[in-house]
Amino acid sequence: MFTAIKNQYLVTDNNEFSIAKAATKPESLTDEKKSKKSLRKVIAKIDDLQRVLYAQDKYSVLLIFQAMDAAGKDSTIRAVTRGVNPAGFQVYSFKQPSKLELDHDFLWRSAIALPERGRIGIFNRSYYEEVLVVRVHPEYLSGQRLPQTAGDIWAQRYESIIDHEKHLVRNGTIVLKFWLNVSKQEQKNRFIARIDDPTKNWKFSSGDVKERGYWDDYMHAYEQMLNATSKPWAPWYAIPADDKPYMRLKVAQIIQQTLSSLDLEYPKLEEKERAKLDEMRVKLLEEG
Amino acid sequence: MFTAIKNQYLVTDNNEFSIAKAATKPESLTDEKKSKKSLRKVIAKIDDLQRVLYAQDKYSVLLIFQAMDAAGKDSTIRAVTRGVNPAGFQVYSFKQPSKLELDHDFLWRSAIALPERGRIGIFNRSYYEEVLVVRVHPEYLSGQRLPQTAGDIWAQRYESIIDHEKHLVRNGTIVLKFWLNVSKQEQKNRFIARIDDPTKNWKFSSGDVKERGYWDDYMHAYEQMLNATSKPWAPWYAIPADDKPYMRLKVAQIIQQTLSSLDLEYPKLEEKERAKLDEMRVKLLEEG
Repeated sequence: MFTAIKNQYLVTDNNEFSIAKAATKPESLTDEKKSKKSLRKVIAKIDDLQRVLYAQDKYSVLLIFQAMDAAGKDSTIRAVTRGVNPAGFQVYSFKQPSKLELDHDFLWRSAIALPERGRIGIFNRSYYEEVLVVRVHPEYLSGQRLPQTAGDIWAQRYESIIDHEKHLVRNGTIVLKFWLNVSKQEQKNRFIARIDDPTKNWKFSSGDVKERGYWDDYMHAYEQMLNATSKPWAPWYAIPADDKPYMRLKVAQIIQQTLSSLDLEYPKLEEKERAKLDEMRVKLLEEG
Repeated sequence: MFTAIKNQYLVTDNNEFSIAKAATKPESLTDEKKSKKSLRKVIAKIDDLQRVLYAQDKYSVLLIFQAMDAAGKDSTIRAVTRGVNPAGFQVYSFKQPSKLELDHDFLWRSAIALPERGRIGIFNRSYYEEVLVVRVHPEYLSGQRLPQTAGDIWAQRYESIIDHEKHLVRNGTIVLKFWLNVSKQEQKNRFIARIDDPTKNWKFSSGDVKERGYWDDYMHAYEQMLNATSKPWAPWYAIPADDKPYMRLKVAQIIQQTLSSLDLEYPKLEEKERAKLDEMRVKLLEEG
């Protein structure tokens, strides 16, 4: 089965991940221009790898992005997909669930949007909201009209998610999960920028500030979730998000290095088919 | 969590189910007329229960039918759904997977067809084909373009299925699975009838006889599957299928008794809403 590549931001599978200790900034000062240049190179490599992924038609890739508001989910997804063949990508943003979606189990609405073999699917938010926003606001559960079951509902949801991802990985989907770790101070700065800049007003709603009031509850939910659901076959990466160019580069590198670690190769023809092609070649040349 | 009702045909969760010992006929002679009359009564009860299921909008029900050819899947589904409000049912027949379906994990094509809350979904064949026909013909696996994984693929598929069903049940779907157990002799009789009766010719293909040649392999695959995936929360019932009216009655009874075992009830209004209705009542009467 697929195993995560090593990386300093990998959330290891030993229940020791602590948000208090997780970096929201790079270890040392970064150069924005250098980060952007490096990003372009990495994306060119992703583009090459994506072509082989498509031709081989064996693996699909699912990239999941979760974060607090203004951490940079949208812009990171844009940065990583720009420059790569759009036909190879399928991006889904999950908002408040619809009536039809609530009429199914909580994995249903994303299950129907899973990427096909040969493609890279991106989930902007995902079923992980079910153990994040729903955990912070457990009153949302009543809208889900669930039967009562004994036991801890969050532990059960973790189990459902782990089982689901294990099944996907076994059947050819590579699952990479990114938590963009923005600091509370930096979120404040970005909110103020959204209020001050008229072209950014549309991104802001007063509800965002209300949710910010639950910061500690969210951090608790994230920490529990990251520890419970980061597995060698479906890893979480906790990426410092206060420095956007650095964050984008780190995300792109992990995607590129993961793709490079797979046994991607163009399909090889069998000898008989190869011989047929050679025959065709002769025929075409004979046309004169 | 939901627990299966007791029934003589329940496949128990102790790995002791043996097809050699499983009945293909009722224990004693049955009266066709009596069976049909009983079936009508049971169906009337299912119809009543289905209305409450729909109004309560909490549970959904998934009925899965698996069997050898000519065991009576179609006619049993027809018999059980006839007389019940069609709006409450969603029947899906799974044939050979399409290109798009093969481009996803093996649970995907049925996951998108899962019944909504308040409804009864019926799968005529299902993801269980992945451990039946694919196990008997492992060459089909190569068409699925899976990554190589260590370990026993059938055990892994059982695990995926068990995990998937557990998740569904926890989130409100009741899963009942019926294996219609027809004898090899009775299948032969029914095939001959399909050949002799021009109105039944369309149901027969020469491939059916070829598959019959793999009878023992199929029985082995069924036995393994039934033992591995019959769980108290997602039971298999092995129903004798040589006597059709009896088989239909037994299936209908299990559905009815299971629905009766749930905490189904019409939604109750809160006092305030109840008071509003009473107010409306007065207003309507005052119209004169």
